[in-house]
Order: sequence, then C-alpha cells, then structure tokens
Amino acid sequence: MIKKTINVNGVNRTVVAAADESLANVLRGQLGLTGTKVGCGQGECGACSVILDDKLVRSCITKMGRVPDGARVTTIEGIGTPGSLHPLQLAWIVHGGAQCGFCTPGFIVSAKALLAQNPNPFRDEVREWFNTHRNACRCTGYKPIVDAVMDAAKVMRGEMDASELLFRMPSDGEVWGSKYPRPSAVAKVTGTLDYGDDLGVKMPPDTLHLALVQAKVSHANIKNIDTSEAEKMPGVFKVVTHKDVKGKNRITGLITFPTNAGDGWDRPILCDDKVYQYGDAIAIVCADTQAAADAAAEKVRVDLEELPAYMSAPAAMAEDALEIHPGTPNIYFRIPIMKGEETAPIMASAAYVVEGEYYLQRQPHLTMETDVGLAYHDDDGRLTIHSKSIGIHLHHAMIAPGLGVEPEKLRLIQNPAGGTFGYKFSPTMEALLGAACMATNRPVFLRYNYNQHITYTGKRSPFWLKVKYGADKDGKLLAMESDWSVDHGPYSEFGDLLTMRGAQFIGAGYGIPNIRGEGRTVCTNHAWGSAFRAYGSPQSFLAGESLMDELAAKMGEDPLELRARNVYRPGDTTPTGQEPEVFCFAEMVDNLRPLYQEAKKKAKAGSTEDIKRGVGISLGIYGCGLDGPDSSEIRVELNPDNSVTVFSAWEDHGQGADMGVLGTAHKALRPLKLTPEQIHLVMNDTALTPNSGPAGGSRSQVMTGNAIKNGCEILIAAMRKSDGTYRTYQEMVAEKLALSYSGAWTASMCSACSMETAQGAPFSVYMYGMFMAEVAVDTKTGKTTVEGFTVMADVGSINNKLVVDGQIYGGVAQGIGLALTEDFEDLKKHTTLHACGLPYPKDIPDRIDIHYIETPRENGPFGAAGVGELPLTSSHVAVINAIYDATGVRVRHLPALPEKVLAGLASQK
Amino acid sequence: MIKKTINVNGVNRTVVAAADESLANVLRGQLGLTGTKVGCGQGECGACSVILDDKLVRSCITKMGRVPDGARVTTIEGIGTPGSLHPLQLAWIVHGGAQCGFCTPGFIVSAKALLAQNPNPFRDEVREWFNTHRNACRCTGYKPIVDAVMDAAKVMRGEMDASELLFRMPSDGEVWGSKYPRPSAVAKVTGTLDYGDDLGVKMPPDTLHLALVQAKVSHANIKNIDTSEAEKMPGVFKVVTHKDVKGKNRITGLITFPTNAGDGWDRPILCDDKVYQYGDAIAIVCADTQAAADAAAEKVRVDLEELPAYMSAPAAMAEDALEIHPGTPNIYFRIPIMKGEETAPIMASAAYVVEGEYYLQRQPHLTMETDVGLAYHDDDGRLTIHSKSIGIHLHHAMIAPGLGVEPEKLRLIQNPAGGTFGYKFSPTMEALLGAACMATNRPVFLRYNYNQHITYTGKRSPFWLKVKYGADKDGKLLAMESDWSVDHGPYSEFGDLLTMRGAQFIGAGYGIPNIRGEGRTVCTNHAWGSAFRAYGSPQSFLAGESLMDELAAKMGEDPLELRARNVYRPGDTTPTGQEPEVFCFAEMVDNLRPLYQEAKKKAKAGSTEDIKRGVGISLGIYGCGLDGPDSSEIRVELNPDNSVTVFSAWEDHGQGADMGVLGTAHKALRPLKLTPEQIHLVMNDTALTPNSGPAGGSRSQVMTGNAIKNGCEILIAAMRKSDGTYRTYQEMVAEKLALSYSGAWTASMCSACSMETAQGAPFSVYMYGMFMAEVAVDTKTGKTTVEGFTVMADVGSINNKLVVDGQIYGGVAQGIGLALTEDFEDLKKHTTLHACGLPYPKDIPDRIDIHYIETPRENGPFGAAGVGELPLTSSHVAVINAIYDATGVRVRHLPALPEKVLAGLASQK
Repeated sequence: MIKKTINVNGVNRTVVAAADESLANVLRGQLGLTGTKVGCGQGECGACSVILDDKLVRSCITKMGRVPDGARVTTIEGIGTPGSLHPLQLAWIVHGGAQCGFCTPGFIVSAKALLAQNPNPFRDEVREWFNTHRNACRCTGYKPIVDAVMDAAKVMRGEMDASELLFRMPSDGEVWGSKYPRPSAVAKVTGTLDYGDDLGVKMPPDTLHLALVQAKVSHANIKNIDTSEAEKMPGVFKVVTHKDVKGKNRITGLITFPTNAGDGWDRPILCDDKVYQYGDAIAIVCADTQAAADAAAEKVRVDLEELPAYMSAPAAMAEDALEIHPGTPNIYFRIPIMKGEETAPIMASAAYVVEGEYYLQRQPHLTMETDVGLAYHDDDGRLTIHSKSIGIHLHHAMIAPGLGVEPEKLRLIQNPAGGTFGYKFSPTMEALLGAACMATNRPVFLRYNYNQHITYTGKRSPFWLKVKYGADKDGKLLAMESDWSVDHGPYSEFGDLLTMRGAQFIGAGYGIPNIRGEGRTVCTNHAWGSAFRAYGSPQSFLAGESLMDELAAKMGEDPLELRARNVYRPGDTTPTGQEPEVFCFAEMVDNLRPLYQEAKKKAKAGSTEDIKRGVGISLGIYGCGLDGPDSSEIRVELNPDNSVTVFSAWEDHGQGADMGVLGTAHKALRPLKLTPEQIHLVMNDTALTPNSGPAGGSRSQVMTGNAIKNGCEILIAAMRKSDGTYRTYQEMVAEKLALSYSGAWTASMCSACSMETAQGAPFSVYMYGMFMAEVAVDTKTGKTTVEGFTVMADVGSINNKLVVDGQIYGGVAQGIGLALTEDFEDLKKHTTLHACGLPYPKDIPDRIDIHYIETPRENGPFGAAGVGELPLTSSHVAVINAIYDATGVRVRHLPALPEKVLAGLASQK
Repeated sequence: MIKKTINVNGVNRTVVAAADESLANVLRGQLGLTGTKVGCGQGECGACSVILDDKLVRSCITKMGRVPDGARVTTIEGIGTPGSLHPLQLAWIVHGGAQCGFCTPGFIVSAKALLAQNPNPFRDEVREWFNTHRNACRCTGYKPIVDAVMDAAKVMRGEMDASELLFRMPSDGEVWGSKYPRPSAVAKVTGTLDYGDDLGVKMPPDTLHLALVQAKVSHANIKNIDTSEAEKMPGVFKVVTHKDVKGKNRITGLITFPTNAGDGWDRPILCDDKVYQYGDAIAIVCADTQAAADAAAEKVRVDLEELPAYMSAPAAMAEDALEIHPGTPNIYFRIPIMKGEETAPIMASAAYVVEGEYYLQRQPHLTMETDVGLAYHDDDGRLTIHSKSIGIHLHHAMIAPGLGVEPEKLRLIQNPAGGTFGYKFSPTMEALLGAACMATNRPVFLRYNYNQHITYTGKRSPFWLKVKYGADKDGKLLAMESDWSVDHGPYSEFGDLLTMRGAQFIGAGYGIPNIRGEGRTVCTNHAWGSAFRAYGSPQSFLAGESLMDELAAKMGEDPLELRARNVYRPGDTTPTGQEPEVFCFAEMVDNLRPLYQEAKKKAKAGSTEDIKRGVGISLGIYGCGLDGPDSSEIRVELNPDNSVTVFSAWEDHGQGADMGVLGTAHKALRPLKLTPEQIHLVMNDTALTPNSGPAGGSRSQVMTGNAIKNGCEILIAAMRKSDGTYRTYQEMVAEKLALSYSGAWTASMCSACSMETAQGAPFSVYMYGMFMAEVAVDTKTGKTTVEGFTVMADVGSINNKLVVDGQIYGGVAQGIGLALTEDFEDLKKHTTLHACGLPYPKDIPDRIDIHYIETPRENGPFGAAGVGELPLTSSHVAVINAIYDATGVRVRHLPALPEKVLAGLASQK
C-alpha cells in the first residue's frame, strides 16, 4: 500500500491504496467521486479523464504509484456543480452535448484542460484535442460537443455572457418542438447521475461482487464443473452454478412467429450441458471484493469436450454441420416474401437486370458504458434487478421462469444507461444477477469489463444477402428477387422478427410491384444476435441501396434521378404491400437535388490522383413499432400541489426518454397550463410503472407517446368543469373523483405480416430519410474519410429539436462507422473499442447538415414519428456509394476497410 | 433492502439500503459524503446532524426506512465548499468555532436549520436550539460557536458584508499574536477533513473490518478461547488471538521512575492468561464488513474464571486484596514529599489548622470522535498504523516489542483527531491494529463505538486525597501535610509520573515552606489511567484549593484575600522547591479583585430562598513539559520555490497544532519575509517527521516551539549572505549548501524530582491562572448552574489569540463538567455522553471572560508558555467553592451532583 496526500478539487485527501490501483478506482471507489466514469478501462474512451497537475490524463490507466504525492487532481466535481454550473456545462446542456451522458464528464474535463492552454481554439483544434486524448462519444456524432466547447470558450473569454447561453422558454410556453434541455442534462454534465457502476460503489456494505466463469471456446459439451478450490478462496461467499438456479435455467426467447422451429428455450442462464458461444457463463463467483471474486473465478475448473464451432451462417448451414441445439435445425426459421406476380418471367424480359451479393458485418454497439447491474431483495421480498434493460417488462417475462421466481416476486428497474443502441433489448446479465442474489440472499453487483462487454453481449446479426432488381428501360423497378441468411448466433430470441425485417426493408422506399424471395434465421456459434438501432434495416438497405446504385451505373443514369423515378408515390406500396402513411420522398429528392449537384461538382473539383472524392446517396425507412398491433400503457396522476406525475416505462438508452415523456405530456397537458417543472416523471420500474413495452424500433414516441396523450386527455376530461375551467386537486378530492388514470394506445390499424407471403401492414408510422455522403478516398492507403454528410429527414412533427438533432447526428456517426471500420468478427482481435473500429472525433465530419420535412403523422401523437433508427437505416450505404462514386470500387462486404478499397483499386488496373 | 430516491444537496440519488440502516451510514459509507460525522451514534452529540425535508435530524438515529422517498437531505457538503464558503462557515473560521472540528459540520448544519426558521435569533435562542438538538462540543466551551452564528446571521440578513468577517492580515505582516485562522479551519468547516472513520470509508476494497471480542467482567483468569465457530461465519477472514501476536504481546509502560515496583510489561495487547479490566480485548475478528465482524465476534467463546474485582484504590489497597498482577504489589509506586522542616511540630503550634479529605472522580474525556484507526503495510513493507495517537514516537516504542516488529519496520501516523484531551497519550488500539494487520497481511480498520470508546480507553485517574494546612494567625501558610492514593487502573503506564504530579501541585501557587506527605499509585481493576488535560493537577488542586477556602471559612477571611496573602512572591518556591520563573499572581489578584467584589455583590443581590447564588475562586498552575530536561526535535527545509517546509511531530488533539507550528515558524522566519502560505507543514508521521515528543502537558509550544525556532534560525543563518540579505534556493544549491536542517531544544535547566523528597526543578516554564465561578444553586433540586466564569491567565506571550482563547473556553467547560456532572464509575450506567455528564450548551455559561497577563517566558519561544492545561487545573474548584459560597455546602467528593448538594443542604437543617 502507498499513502499519499493528493489535492482533489481543492481539498487535501489522504489516500491509502495499492500502488498498482488506478487513479480512477481510487477516485470512484475510495473517495466516492463517481463523476469520473470508467468506460473501457483501457485508456481508449476518455470517460475517466481528469486533470493531474495541469495535465489531462486518463485516470483508468494512471496507476496510483505514479501519482506524485501532493498532486492536484481536478475531476468533474471540481469543475462545476448542479447549483453552480461551469460555462462548459451550460454549453453542453444547451447544445445537447450529453445524450447518454456517460462520456460527458470526461469530455468536459478534457475541454477544460484544452481551454486552459488554448482559450480560443478553432473547431479543428477542438476535434484534434479530443482525438489525441481519445475522448470518444457514441451518441452525439461529436458535432454538438464541438459546438458546446466553442460557445463555452466564448463565455470564458468574456465575449458572451453565460446567460445568453441559457435555454429560453418560448413566449407561448410551448415546450413541444423547442430545444428544451432534457431533465437529466444537469446531472449528466455535472457527473452526478448515478449509472450502474456508480450505484455499485454506493451499495450496502454486505453487497457481493460477482465474477463470471466464462467459456473460452465457442462450442463444447460440458463434462464437469469443479468449484471446490474456488469456494476455499479468501472472501468467497459462494460459487453459483446451474445447480443453484431454481427455475428452468433458460431465458425464453418468447418466440414471435408460429413457424419458428425452435421453442425459444435455448439460452441457458448458466451453462449446464453445453457451451454455445465464446463467453457463455458457466459459474458466478460471489465474493466480498471484485479482486477476490476475480481471483477465485480463475480457480473454477471446467471440463469441456470441444465441438466444431460454426462461426457464420454459411458454416452453420453446411449439410454436415451438427445441430447446435440438438433437435432444432440450425436454420430454424424461414420467411418467404411474395408480392405481386412471379418475378422470374419479369426478370427474363426486363430491360435492365442487376444482381448483387452483400454482407453486412456483425456491428458491435460500442457503448461507452459496459454492461452493469445489481440485484437485491426489496422490502416486499421481491427479487429486484437493476440493469440497463430497455425492456423491463419484456425481460421480466423472459427471465422469471428460468430463475424460478413468481412473476409478482420479480421487479426490474432500469438504471441510467451509458448507451445501449439496442443491445439491451436482450436480457444480458439480468438472470445472472437474479441467480446470484437468490443463491446468496445478498445484494449482488456485476460489471462487465470491456472485453466481457464486447464478447458476451449481443451484436447486430450479419446478413448474407443476394438481391436482384429488374427494371424497365427508364429504370423503373418492375420486380425484385431476394435471398437473405441471418447469422443470429446461438440464441433464438427475436431472430425470426429480425429476419422478417429483411422482407420489410429490402427494396423499401420504392414501389416495386413484384417480389419473390426468402429469408432465413441461422443458428451459429458466434455472438448472439441482439437488437441494434434500425434492427435489420442496415442489412436490408445495404443490398437494396447498393444495388440501386449498381443499376444506375449499369444504365449510365444518375443515382439520385434513378431513385427519384422510383420512390414511393401515391399508389405505391411497401415490400409488404402496405400503403405508406405519407409520401415525402419526392419532396425530399427535390430538396436534396441542388445540394447533391453542388456536392458532386465540389467532389469532382477536389479530386486528385491520390485523393479521390465522391458523393453517395441512399434512402432509408424504418417502422415505428413492433410488428402488428403494438401497444403501450402509462399512468398519470394528479398531485396535491396540482402537479402531474407521469408513470411510464419509456426506457432510456441515452436517447432522451425523459424528454420524450416530458415533451409529450407537457403538450398533452397544455389546457392545465403546467410548467415543465410541474410534470414529474416516474420511469422504468416494473413495480411502479405500467407496461409501456420495450424502447426499441423507435416505437416509444409513437406507442408510449400516444398512451401519454391518451392518459393526459382522460385526466383533463376528469378535471374539466362545466364552465370549461379545471378542478384543482382539492376539488377532485372533494368530489371524490379519481386522481390516477391509465393511458393506453394500440396500433389497431396494423396487421402482422403473413408467414406465407410476408405481406401485411406491420407499422402505423414510418420514418423516411435520404442521406448524402461526401468522401475522400486516399488511393495510396485505401482509407476513406467522410468529409461532409447531409440528412433529409421526415420524422413527423418534432417533439424536441435538441433530442431529434442529437439522434440524427449520432446515428449518422454509427452509419459511418458501420460503413468503414466497425466489426466484431475476430474473437481475439475485436475486443476493444479501438480494435472494433469505434469512430473518434476526426473520423466523423464536423459538417453534418440536417434538413427536416415535418409531415405530421395521423397516428403519431401530435403528428410525431420516432427518430432514433432513421439515421442508421442506410447512412452507411451513402458512404459505400460515395466510395464507388469516387473510385469506381464497389464494396459489398462491409466494413470498407482500406485493404478492401485498395484491393478494388488494384483490380481496376 | 429498500430502494429510494433521495435528493442529497440538490442531486437525486438512488439508494439501496437496509431499512434499519442509518441515514448517516448511507450518506457516509454508501454515498461517500463523509462531511457528516458520526460521533456517539446514539443521537446524543449532533455531529451527524442533517436537514431532512426542512427538519433538523440526527442522521445516526434516522433509519432509512423512515426517510421518505423523494426526501431532500442537506449535509455540510450542500452548505458550502472550500471554494465557496457559506457565511456560517466563514464565521466559524474567524471565531475559532472549529477546534478539533469533529462537531463542526453538525453544528453548522444545525445553525443553518435554525436560521432558516429564525433569521434573527437572540444568543439564548441559539444556545437553546443547540441544546434542544443535542449539538455537543467538547473543545470550544460553545461561546465561539454562538459568536459565529450571531455574525453569520448578520451577514445572511444583509446587515454585514461577508468580507467584513474575514481575517485581515496585520499591516506589519505579523502572524504571531494575531487571530490568524488555523490552516485546517477551512477543511473543518466544510466537512472535507478526513478523520479516521472517514479514511476508513476511503480505504482500499480489500480492507478488513475489525471487531473486538472483549471482556464483560473486570477481573478473571482466562481458561480457554474458542474461535472455531466464529471462523466459520460468513465474511470472516481470520480471528486473531494472543497466539497470533508475534512479539511479547505486551505494551510497555516505559517505566519513568526507578523506584517503580513493576517492570512496565503489564498490559497485554490481546489478553492471554488474565482479564484485567472490563473491555479488555481477547480476540479480534477480521472480516469483510463491520456487520460480519460484529456477528462473528458474538460467536467467540471465552471460558473465564472470574476473580474479585478491585474497583477503587482503597479496595485494591485492602490487606486481603489479591495482587492484580501477581508478583507486583497493588501499590507499586510511592513518592514521598519532603520540603523544609518536619511539619508535625508546626501543625501543633499553628494558629489555624485545617484538614480535608477529597476525591476527584474518574473523569471521562468524552471526545466527540470515538477511538479509530487503521493499518496496512506501506510500499516499503513497514507496518503503518494510523490512529489518534498524540505521541507517535512514544507509542512506536511502546508497541514495537509487543508486536514483534523491528522498529524500522513500524510507522505511526496521526490522523486528524476529533478530540483527545489526553486520552491518546496512551496507546489504545494501535497494537490491536498492528496485530490484526500482521496476522492477515491485509489493510485493517477499527472504530470503537461509543460504548467501547468509553469503557476501553483510559480515563483520568481518581485521586483519594487527604491534605492538612497549618497557617499563622494572618492565614499565611506555614506547613502542609498531604497524602494521596491514585487509582490508576490495571496498567502502569505513566502511573508513577501522574502520582508525582500530586507532589508538584498539591499546595502549588503558595509559598509553603514546609511539606511532608506521600503519594502512591494503586493498581485496580477499573479503567486504566491515561493522561487527561492538566494531568494530575485537577486532583491536586481539588484538595489544595478547596482546603484554602476551608481555611478562609475557618478564619472568617475572604478567600481571595487569603490567597492574596499566600500566592507566590519572589523568595517563594514551589512544592518541589523550584523558584517560579515569573511571579504574576499578585497582579492577577489585583486585577481580579474588583471583578470578584462586583460578582459577590451581584450574587448576594440575586439570591433567593430557592435560588442561592455564590462566587468561588481558585488558582491553578501547570508545568509545560515532561519532568526534567524534556526535549524536542524538528526539521526545516528550503524548497525550490523558496518556501519552507517544517517537519514536526506536534500532534494535534484538536487544540491547533498546525497553528502552533505555523505561528512559531512564521515568527522565526520573519527575516525571510515569508507569507504564511509559504510555510508548509509536514506533521505527525514517524517516517517523515523527527521525534518532537508527545503532545501532552502543554509541552509542545515550549519544547517543539523552541525546536522550531532553533531550526529556523539555523536555516536563516545558512541562508544569510555577508551583506545581510538571504540566499535563494537556487543560490543555496549553487553554493552546495545544505537545504535541510534539524532544529532541537532541551530544557537543560530542569532536573527531575528526587525519588526521596520529590524536590527538583521539573519544568522550565509554568502557566498560571485564577478562576472565578458565579453559580446559582437550586435548593429544591440541588442543581448547580454556572452563570458566569472569569479566567485570569498568564500563558506568556500569545502565539495565536484564537487558539489560546479557544483552549481556555474549552478547558473551563471541561472544568465545569468535572465539578458538576462528569464521571465514569458505573460500568453499566456511564456508557454514553449524556450519562457520563457531558455539558451541553446550556450547561456552560455564555459569559466567559478571559483576562490575560502576558509575562514573557525566558525559556519559551518568543516568550510563550503552553496553554491547554491551565483552564482545567482548578476551574472546577472555583465552581465547588462557589457552591459553598452560595449554600454553605462543601462538596469534597466530586462531581457535585444535585443529590450531594441536597444532602449537604439537608444536613444544615
């Protein structure tokens, strides 16, 4: 142990710590300063940035032995507090710099250090600084962050008053449509929002720390698990195995479609007879400290019989492949699509026929925060599990039988989440936490390190696609044939639903009258498939929108004009035969055209032998909801002070669920003339909030938004007096009127798609967009840089401009990463943020322009659609198409790594 | 477990905690907000006060189950920070409201709640508020705290600017003699100073929590210790017993005097063959949490053969009493005093002879903070023990052989201490921490709860005294005979030294030419005797100063005038035959006389049948140092920025050691024209600071002060150039001059007292004072209230006015408690602050006046003496004498509880 006195935020603190302990752990775990976040723990994300003796350091890789005695440390807590915000914090709030907020303290500390040495930086210097200091953000696309630094610097230089930065309430008191900052913003920018790991630091003293014993192979039979040596290790309370799990020890996949060959009971909580994928949990060591748990986990002996591992859909589809789940074929679900006439004859006679094979990779979510959670028995004896779940009621149903706990004795709560982007649509550690808590009857805490987070949470499922378009001489699409195989990993949950997305989105955007095809879900031994923003559509549009460009190339037509000719117009239907609820593409094309032509001109002028510039476009669509008549429920309650509380399970990935609820409720409650502060939110606790459904598929604003609108309208109706004024709480009580009302909404106008034809009207509201990427390709290195990006978006009426802008910036950044760098394929190599291809500030253009068409949606509350998925539907294809435009190289197997572009360039010679 | 969201200092925090966990533990241990202190843990001290939904509560007795969901909690961290002090915090600093500072956060939070509902209180309302809310302080005597609240309220009402409150540096830059606030003040008023329990919260995660298995009887043979069941309890790492202690398993008492019959090796670290007193430690359970350790401690089975317990000096002196330490007589030390002629003949012929028997009780220290410490092996492999030790080098020597650790492998560090008042002159838990750390090789933490703190730390040793004065017809003392038996408990450490104090201070203050007497140290089974402010003198003066009043009564003389006739004047010597270094009593009497006469008049006028008022006086003296040629050593070092660092082991009880060092060093370094900020302090770490000796007996300002002066002078001499200017650091380096210098001082003019006659010159500097108490006695209840108190003090030149005032206020308060309420006698009853008689605000008069005579001391640095002991030498006797003046009741057996006064009144009838 070393003993040092360090001055933390102006206060001298005596610290006793192991010399090889990180400064981050000392600040957080010992000094309780949880404003400093630990993301990757490897110095690759900057969430842990602090200033140490005037130098910006990443505290997760700064060992205490190297911190000088008497050193001065500044953390986010020393920069500003909720009651006294620093200009950087103010600017961060008003520019939407914090979405999930997990990276925010590190960014703000980093910006503080930058401005201390360069009070008047250029935007590029800000980007360079963050890039050099490895400040990474997965939500914002970086632009709002740079905006915030520039404005804060102005305030700090005295060129702007801090008050000019503040959000001003519109004079009409209308929050809807404004840039009202999300309620959690202050907590996020001050580091005072407690994420799961922060709650872990603050748990009761008898909390057990968990360490997983995990499979290091991808497929094996388990012969024996010997925990005896581990049980004897110091600090170990218990080693939990499948034998300790009281229930079925399976997480049910809640099979969506009847033609699924599996039963959904394929995912073990703790492996018993088999290992299905690398990282599978075999045992849980429960100990007094993390170090004790980790040390004992090394001592658990697992005797395995290794089996052949099927690491891709084609491998698992091979005739001689073993059934990964014996008794269930590896191809466990097939969905045919049949729209219009048979396509073969049409193809035979079409003026133009193009065909392409495409592969969209296993995109990792790369959240800044790793998966983390805790569990305990609450005072009603309920097993209470806190996690990053974005589907608390869904997960409740998925894990209760496996754990062997009565539904009413299980409670799920979502912690503030440092990003999920959909991976938390799957249960991850919930059942592990539950099993450990039940087996020990102690509070338990588990946090994955980044390696675990990457290797043992779900990923975007790769699609292997083959698509053919037939068009007439003008390029008008006549027919499409499609075939897609989905590598869904070993666990079936929602794999059928995902596969259905191929039917819904391959070729979407265009009125294709005749379609034939088939998609299939394949069980493999690679990472299990979980939801990821725009679930199924990036795969679909990779094929549809690449092939559209290929058709244009074949025809010698301009890709925009070819699209212009084909986009949905009245009379057209979607691939599933549904009539689009609005037709906005024609206007969008018209709006994009001048920008596109200008960009093309600029790209041409800017191209050299070494740097080729090009412009690519794509369109994207996503449905808001789960297939068919999706629904949501909330509750509203009038309080004694005449404020209103909204109870909802609108889970927050970081996208701004709090603002979603507040904006919608404020709008719905306008007759009561409430201020936003008079609307209280109770969110995301199965014991307190009705089942609003999971926060996925951009369904929340539509489904839960409508439920909120409904509940508020019912409350208002109950409060309304005959003279048109409204009863107070006291008057309601006096008249014995109810104070609490359910709000509900069902998309009853929808129908699930047919299992025979995939035809149906699955979504009540869609989001529509077009994307334009401007790229530069270094022909020497093959490296592609996106220099500018334009988004045309119709997400209906906008609830909150700051949130919606933020969603689009962030989604585009993920699209660029998907196009160029991101992957999770190699289990040895793809284990860190950097190795997985996370875009850093300089990988994302500072110029991202968004143009909205606000077509009100009849079925959206106050006209709103969702937004989160739209920017990731096909923004990556715009980049891929731009590479083609710049170089003539068509990348069909993503990501477009430099070596692939180089190979394409070489093959041109 | 319950899950609640509480808003702490404006930040929403989700908390999971056991329903019966205290809010204090959650705030501190879980949320890391260690500004809230836990003192008694029983709601009797108010250190843990927080504001809960606008109501002041003691968080240590507020269970989490009773904290409403959504509650707002304000702690000291929410009131102000070091960078942004609240007016209350500012006022606390400039009024010296924080001495040890442990009660400070609770007081400030309490004051905040008061001023929220009463912005303009009267002083009495402030006192009433604190009294009602059980805000207790053991250091300040409350007056500075009330002063601070009154000024802060002015600022908060806008009647005074905060800047008017601030300390202003004198224009001559002279810190010496000013009210410069102590360096630790800001940390204390903001709750950011980490005391031992706070450091415990911030220890590394593998730290073991300790629970003691303690004796519940006072005297017994140990037959067997069975730890097997405890070892099996969850979370238990090891149960440590005497068998695990590597060394002699004894704390050596470092026998001071050669005639001591014992060898000093009488105090076990962990009991092996015997239990010597209630609370003796038999085993230490080392576990992962405090709850686990406590639960397992209950499972250790100790088989005892109980022995007769000797609970007082007379009992242990009985002929048939067993030897508590077999082989060593229970009376193990005797000190005769022989000054001048034989006294018997003088007594026989004296005009007046008075004699009295007195008993001064086992005064408990009643610090707000309990005993607490921690241990670990530092990076040099040294066993490093942090505790409240006020004698780190002394304790180092006392515990090293018992632990079996090489001296160079043992390091002692003093934590910021929440009051000791001398109890930490004894090792308490140091060796227990060391034994546990050595046996487990883990960091360990131990905190006594208040019951343990009272029952298992040393106490002021009761004296049983019998004294006789013989005087001539004018009341001039001719001779004294004295006999005193010291109940020192079972452990010998410093018992001989304490007994010697009787020889030095019975009759001190008066030129008594002839003295005969004997004192003896008696081993008993009651609490071991440790140092307590003014060590030995309150006992001595109880006899000497009570008897002086009895003589006056017998003569019909005024007590002040009788004293005036007898106080030291040139030619007089002390009871040990030493010539006083200054003669200030005559002037003091003259200064006191008008005040005394006025008070007497007022008391007479204010007396009724029910409420009798009276005035009592006493004088007090204490020596600054340990007997004989005491010494101290420090080190000073010139830093690259030309600042100077002073390395010293001037331990801090809370008295202001930091200010002592800074004030003295600043004065000594005046030629260099340094600001106080340019003087850095490194304090109280045996690995870093020279042996400055223990901080007891008011020796530090004289011994260590002189050593600082010496070191600084040597440094200045080395820096001085021939032209009278001073070399910079860079010039020193260039000329290869040393940068670090030892400073040392020895009281070579002193001589230890003779073992045959107690004659000698033990101290180089004394403190002198007179005390006047004005009391009201309720004749119906017997309750005495001190309504005013006056102190005449000569403590030499004053280093820091704020510190010296504070010491006197606080010492007087302890004297009042000693006189009226405080005791530790009944092991069952005297186990809480309140039960032990701690004075609360209304028990101490708001009117305490101090009058200084600053006679410079030749042997004090810049003329300074010590101060801390003076106010507790005989302030209690002034109260006792005032009760007599008011009622005619002479209380000789302290404390003067109402029933004793009532009994006295009854016997008058």
